[in-house]
Amino acid sequence: MSKNIIVFGGDGFCGWPTSLALSKAGYNITIVDNLSRRSIDQNMRCESLTPISDIDTRIRVWKEITGNEIKFVNIDVANRYSAIYNLLLELKPETVIHFAEQRAAPYSMKSPAHKMYTVNNNLNATHNILCAIVASGIDTHMIHLGSTGVYGYNTVGMKIPEGYLNVKIDTDYGEKELEILYPPNPGSIYHMTKTQDALFFLYYNKNDGVRITDLHQGIVWGTNTIETNMDVRLINRFDYDGEYGTVLNRFLMQAAIGHPLTVYGSGGQTRAFININDTVNCIKIAIENPPKHGERVKIFNQTTECHNIKNLAKIISSMTGAKIKYYSNPRNETNRNDLEFCKDFFLNLGLNPITLQKRLLEEIIEVAKKYKGRCDRSKIICQSTWRSDILVDFEGSDSENIIN
Amino acid sequence: MSKNIIVFGGDGFCGWPTSLALSKAGYNITIVDNLSRRSIDQNMRCESLTPISDIDTRIRVWKEITGNEIKFVNIDVANRYSAIYNLLLELKPETVIHFAEQRAAPYSMKSPAHKMYTVNNNLNATHNILCAIVASGIDTHMIHLGSTGVYGYNTVGMKIPEGYLNVKIDTDYGEKELEILYPPNPGSIYHMTKTQDALFFLYYNKNDGVRITDLHQGIVWGTNTIETNMDVRLINRFDYDGEYGTVLNRFLMQAAIGHPLTVYGSGGQTRAFININDTVNCIKIAIENPPKHGERVKIFNQTTECHNIKNLAKIISSMTGAKIKYYSNPRNETNRNDLEFCKDFFLNLGLNPITLQKRLLEEIIEVAKKYKGRCDRSKIICQSTWRSDILVDFEGSDSENIIN
Repeated sequence: MSKNIIVFGGDGFCGWPTSLALSKAGYNITIVDNLSRRSIDQNMRCESLTPISDIDTRIRVWKEITGNEIKFVNIDVANRYSAIYNLLLELKPETVIHFAEQRAAPYSMKSPAHKMYTVNNNLNATHNILCAIVASGIDTHMIHLGSTGVYGYNTVGMKIPEGYLNVKIDTDYGEKELEILYPPNPGSIYHMTKTQDALFFLYYNKNDGVRITDLHQGIVWGTNTIETNMDVRLINRFDYDGEYGTVLNRFLMQAAIGHPLTVYGSGGQTRAFININDTVNCIKIAIENPPKHGERVKIFNQTTECHNIKNLAKIISSMTGAKIKYYSNPRNETNRNDLEFCKDFFLNLGLNPITLQKRLLEEIIEVAKKYKGRCDRSKIICQSTWRSDILVDFEGSDSENIIN
Repeated sequence: MSKNIIVFGGDGFCGWPTSLALSKAGYNITIVDNLSRRSIDQNMRCESLTPISDIDTRIRVWKEITGNEIKFVNIDVANRYSAIYNLLLELKPETVIHFAEQRAAPYSMKSPAHKMYTVNNNLNATHNILCAIVASGIDTHMIHLGSTGVYGYNTVGMKIPEGYLNVKIDTDYGEKELEILYPPNPGSIYHMTKTQDALFFLYYNKNDGVRITDLHQGIVWGTNTIETNMDVRLINRFDYDGEYGTVLNRFLMQAAIGHPLTVYGSGGQTRAFININDTVNCIKIAIENPPKHGERVKIFNQTTECHNIKNLAKIISSMTGAKIKYYSNPRNETNRNDLEFCKDFFLNLGLNPITLQKRLLEEIIEVAKKYKGRCDRSKIICQSTWRSDILVDFEGSDSENIIN
């Protein structure tokens, strides 16, 4: 069987380190990307805190250092079905990994145009890949990056299971047990597209037998992996802006430049987290454990720990002396929530999680402090709001928030 | 409050008679349509059995007869967000009705291009309307035509409820009751888009408070309503081809021209039905009973009776003497299923269903026999299959099918 892997979205924050790690592990990697994340940087007039190289340099340097060749094809996955189809027929990949979606919730809420872009891009991208897999007739395993956000953050007094939920219903013949897809409860346009992706998977698995793994990933923190650390020209991106920056990375950078940590709302929101190195390791495990033929969609929670935002801010504050400042919440969400996830699949298969405790300080010194000169402070506050009646708060408040 | 109503897809099989009935009832109707159903006719080289007039003639004749003006705007709803937005601001409609989706399951399965068209058209159309409603800030009620097919046809020993399902789950604090969206189980790409539409509604209702009614409609049969019968130039479309024709209408036409009734598979498949006149009446009821502000998405089953396909064929056969012929099933589905729907909402609000018993013969004489000369027999057999390993069966078999 071929050891080819296609990484759709392989130039992005998760896609790039995944591509390198898989290349190192002996797979033949083809990156498919339309470099849209770089175009968005330009349109937002904001750059990665780390100085990322262009994709040609990245690939050239990787070959110089390791001798491994990574191919790159520029395809807009949402709009170029035939190119995907031809590539699948040419490479007959053992696995295709689908990172090729707009992946920021605040960006997806910025304006009608951003909502439409996210819906159109994410749904057509997922569907084009599935449709091309079926039409090409190849036997491949599709791995998709989902989000823990598909479950919603209002748990019902239980650990959130991995994708499926056991329920009992009353029928004409008495009570009956069923296993259903966990009822979706998306909190943004971005998350909504992930819940709609799940229905693509349900259908294409049922009708065409496509083998699919959907990974519901927590908020990713950290920057570099063993491979991206091999040369500065391989460095991974680090987003610190209010739209694309993930909360922990934003806090790290804010601490490094002496900006107060930006807590939106009460800080009582609990979220799931995972380090970028664990993202890469989980995907390796998923590749090595594909669904069998005829098996339903595999769904796993790809996250290692849960924290509420206020406690995260306190941890960083205690390590760095950074102040904490409260801003009105641009999101339409409850002030606080509890959250816990089942995550047995990856732990049982040997994932050894990198905890905040282990790696936070290192990240502050090696990335945030080193590149803080590249920060544009005007991009720090989130300028997207969930509804037009929610206003952007540029000032924030020093006082302890009364809620929580 | 304005009595304006926008009918997206108002030139189609359900949209046209609905527009006329609402115009008659005193609403100011604006039809938005890109006439895509007519383009598909041309591409398929197949026409409505009934000689439908062009949209300008339809509207002109309606005005001549009733004095009522219907406006028509040609907008591709899936691709022209700004035009929708401007129209909403201009008309501030009390209700918008969304029929503007590709609505044939076999057509959605015909080829990768047809799958992509259905996904792209239906999802972007629904999203554009919702996004424009929110951006325009108008207070309107959106009525959407869903499908009974979103529930799947494998019931679990109960009448299918209207959209929501009560379940019990085990939590850390004991058993807990929840009401969830009925778990979707779509049987085609077309039906899949309807399940994805439901997630658009869930989200836009939750985040933005959009008031939405989603009507899960059975298979529509019949042709004309009181209004479309007022002049031959107002006649409604009647599809008899294997892709767009609904099963009962296809049988009626086949009986009229002496073609054997085309039963695909065993005929043990049970489906839900509704007459086109009842479609129109249900939508009137939905308009008059909008959700309150802050109310969740209203979901109702818009269907009046269930029959299995074999029994339907036998009814028509006994009325007309038509033979029945069995063809291999192009769909990927079980040989037989039982099906029953809760339909209290419309019945409680006064719907008086037109049953097959009442109207079938009339339909055969007034439509199928009258226009049988327009039939192209080569279009009768369904030429779309659910998977590439399912072959089109042009010959069929006279013998009684052994299953069922």
